[in-house]
Amino acid sequence: MSPTTDHAGTENHTSERTSPERKEPTYLFTEKYVADKSELARRFIETRARLNTNVEKANNFLVKRFYNLDHNTYLDSALSAKTKELMGLVGSACLRCDDCIFYHAIQAYRLGVPRIEQEESLNVALVVGGSIVIPHLRRAYELLEELYG
Amino acid sequence: MSPTTDHAGTENHTSERTSPERKEPTYLFTEKYVADKSELARRFIETRARLNTNVEKANNFLVKRFYNLDHNTYLDSALSAKTKELMGLVGSACLRCDDCIFYHAIQAYRLGVPRIEQEESLNVALVVGGSIVIPHLRRAYELLEELYG
Amino acid sequence: MSPTTDHAGTENHTSERTSPERKEPTYLFTEKYVADKSELARRFIETRARLNTNVEKANNFLVKRFYNLDHNTYLDSALSAKTKELMGLVGSACLRCDDCIFYHAIQAYRLGVPRIEQEESLNVALVVGGSIVIPHLRRAYELLEELYG
Amino acid sequence: MSPTTDHAGTENHTSERTSPERKEPTYLFTEKYVADKSELARRFIETRARLNTNVEKANNFLVKRFYNLDHNTYLDSALSAKTKELMGLVGSACLRCDDCIFYHAIQAYRLGVPRIEQEESLNVALVVGGSIVIPHLRRAYELLEELYG
Amino acid sequence: MSPTTDHAGTENHTSERTSPERKEPTYLFTEKYVADKSELARRFIETRARLNTNVEKANNFLVKRFYNLDHNTYLDSALSAKTKELMGLVGSACLRCDDCIFYHAIQAYRLGVPRIEQEESLNVALVVGGSIVIPHLRRAYELLEELYG
Amino acid sequence: MSPTTDHAGTENHTSERTSPERKEPTYLFTEKYVADKSELARRFIETRARLNTNVEKANNFLVKRFYNLDHNTYLDSALSAKTKELMGLVGSACLRCDDCIFYHAIQAYRLGVPRIEQEESLNVALVVGGSIVIPHLRRAYELLEELYG
Repeated sequence: MSPTTDHAGTENHTSERTSPERKEPTYLFTEKYVADKSELARRFIETRARLNTNVEKANNFLVKRFYNLDHNTYLDSALSAKTKELMGLVGSACLRCDDCIFYHAIQAYRLGVPRIEQEESLNVALVVGGSIVIPHLRRAYELLEELYG
Repeated sequence: MSPTTDHAGTENHTSERTSPERKEPTYLFTEKYVADKSELARRFIETRARLNTNVEKANNFLVKRFYNLDHNTYLDSALSAKTKELMGLVGSACLRCDDCIFYHAIQAYRLGVPRIEQEESLNVALVVGGSIVIPHLRRAYELLEELYG
Repeated sequence: MSPTTDHAGTENHTSERTSPERKEPTYLFTEKYVADKSELARRFIETRARLNTNVEKANNFLVKRFYNLDHNTYLDSALSAKTKELMGLVGSACLRCDDCIFYHAIQAYRLGVPRIEQEESLNVALVVGGSIVIPHLRRAYELLEELYG
Repeated sequence: MSPTTDHAGTENHTSERTSPERKEPTYLFTEKYVADKSELARRFIETRARLNTNVEKANNFLVKRFYNLDHNTYLDSALSAKTKELMGLVGSACLRCDDCIFYHAIQAYRLGVPRIEQEESLNVALVVGGSIVIPHLRRAYELLEELYG
Repeated sequence: MSPTTDHAGTENHTSERTSPERKEPTYLFTEKYVADKSELARRFIETRARLNTNVEKANNFLVKRFYNLDHNTYLDSALSAKTKELMGLVGSACLRCDDCIFYHAIQAYRLGVPRIEQEESLNVALVVGGSIVIPHLRRAYELLEELYG
Repeated sequence: MSPTTDHAGTENHTSERTSPERKEPTYLFTEKYVADKSELARRFIETRARLNTNVEKANNFLVKRFYNLDHNTYLDSALSAKTKELMGLVGSACLRCDDCIFYHAIQAYRLGVPRIEQEESLNVALVVGGSIVIPHLRRAYELLEELYG
């Protein structure tokens, strides 16, 4: 390790304690646009909206707090919203949650993430999580085909 | 959704079927440099190397194939090696594998990823995976402190 | 810690080696009542009954033993059946098993557990298990709405 | 189902939409008392405190929010803090997180939960989560022995 | 331990470093035969084939490599394909992946594995993975009933 | 599918409803022999014995029942104890439980299973469970090296 590289590396590493600003990302596509383009996305979005009505009606304080925290996690910040939605996709595929995979894949699409980046994210989940990820990957590819095809 | 935005989006989405080149990323730091800087990293790297000796000696065809596939997954490609190591970190934290977390956090450090990006990746894992991620996050922060502190 | 509190605590802690009696809890509602009240519960109960027919026909010794052990776990004992059904709900939601969530939520309802206690149990599962619990929580709330609404 | 029972059941179920007050529970024992009584608890509590120092120093907004939400989840409310700590124990044992098991078992002890209730909670986790819970149960019993023995 | 037994044991253990030949197993039944016999198998096989079309069209290098590695894992080798398909069944049931359970149960059936061996494999998964395996076991028994009934 | 093959297949499949006898397998090696041969095995066996003392002392009815059911699952039956111990190994590696992996690998060794069959079982777990299995595989290979080396 040369001193020069070391120095460059140190510069890369200095900003970690400052709390970066969080802000809403710009979506290229509305949920309605996505629902019109993909039947799978439409069904997911509608079911989710219908079920969330019950959750909202219950008005449970801690659920609302969790939803809020969840929302804040994926805002543009030190890492872009795009990257974090793809990370949400990786985590969801590793934990094999179809609804979560659909949610993050649609969010990433709405932010303008190209298909190949969704595939490479799923590749990380596949190798980390193994062949049990495959059925979820198959269903994810069906959604990607409808969104990007 | 205006036609213009739609068009821009479509442009974003066209390159998905081309198979992107994969290449080895450039590491800013060697494993030895990392081991000298962090006692936690040193112990992880040495234990892993010692145990891998047995695995290599066994010369199991399918294990070697898996290791090779694993290596290929994190190369620079449509997504950068940096981003994919952080995704590996997210997947590992969601599945609560300390060794895997250490591995990907060290790889990301070696590639020059700043600390705040490691923290934001862990935030995604924390919200996706819940409070059972916390003990792993605590140990990850100890490593980050030694690497970046 | 005052001696008094210590003493009180010790008193609280003395009965642990005695094996508490286990007995069947009293259900306020029959499965039929629940099925008539909630379409979601009805479908779950009917599918489960239909599939259990095959399992019983197979007459597998170890499966029967497991079913028996499972049944014994949730009887009234040192902890009430109500509390243990809610604990089964928490474990099921943490491990994200919709059928298991429905089973324990229905059992808890039949024992007279109020809705808010089901919600608070799900809150524990949500914070322990993270956002991947959310799709299951949404479906659980739909069931709760039909049962208690 | 008689109208009378139905009515009783309905009464049981009416308070679900009111948001119950949350308040700090009363601990019978301090962490220091527990650490003095049990060597396993002491090591857990000290390691956790040491590692949390790094986490606090990093001052990450979302981590702090998550810690806060986590804290709020286990307060006395519709369900007692005792019951929810035991539910946290069940979820932690189902997800096989030793640190989380130790945390909730110690919290439950500090609140005056008798040993048999901890064991019955672990029984639920054992039957829900299977034999892979056994190594964690063994370590939990070692802690229980030191705390209650 | 007598020297004789010890010696026999040592003989049993000598061949581990030679890389055993892998070869395609002989299937007694085609997928079409299985699909004609069982409606559940037919739906699984058809859906899987339809979704795999998208995956193949995407032509993702790492997905193809993973599929290839997966295929190689279950060939006749030191352990028979039959035994390894049943092991795939155990792993899939422990990780609670219905599609994976159906896949391996059908593969085992096609190789001539008797029903009781499928049941005993599921028993291992049930005791290892706990009661959350039960809903998957119920669905697996429905498939077994159609295949072997 | 020719009628002949069909018939052969049917013959293969007829014995499923008879409840096969279960009996204790013959171990080639005692736990003491294994502990003398491998330091890793010795530490595992001694720790497990020490911790089980607490569990036995507590005399919890449901824990004893679970232990008994667990014991019965791995007896010689339609599938041999050898095969089922290897299946226990696969399930344990898929669920990433080091203690469980050690337990089943030692049991399989004591029954005379050759090393290559342990490796092939771990290969199934690796491909099913993904790269997060690797740290456990490394530790398992260290044990295998001490047992068979």
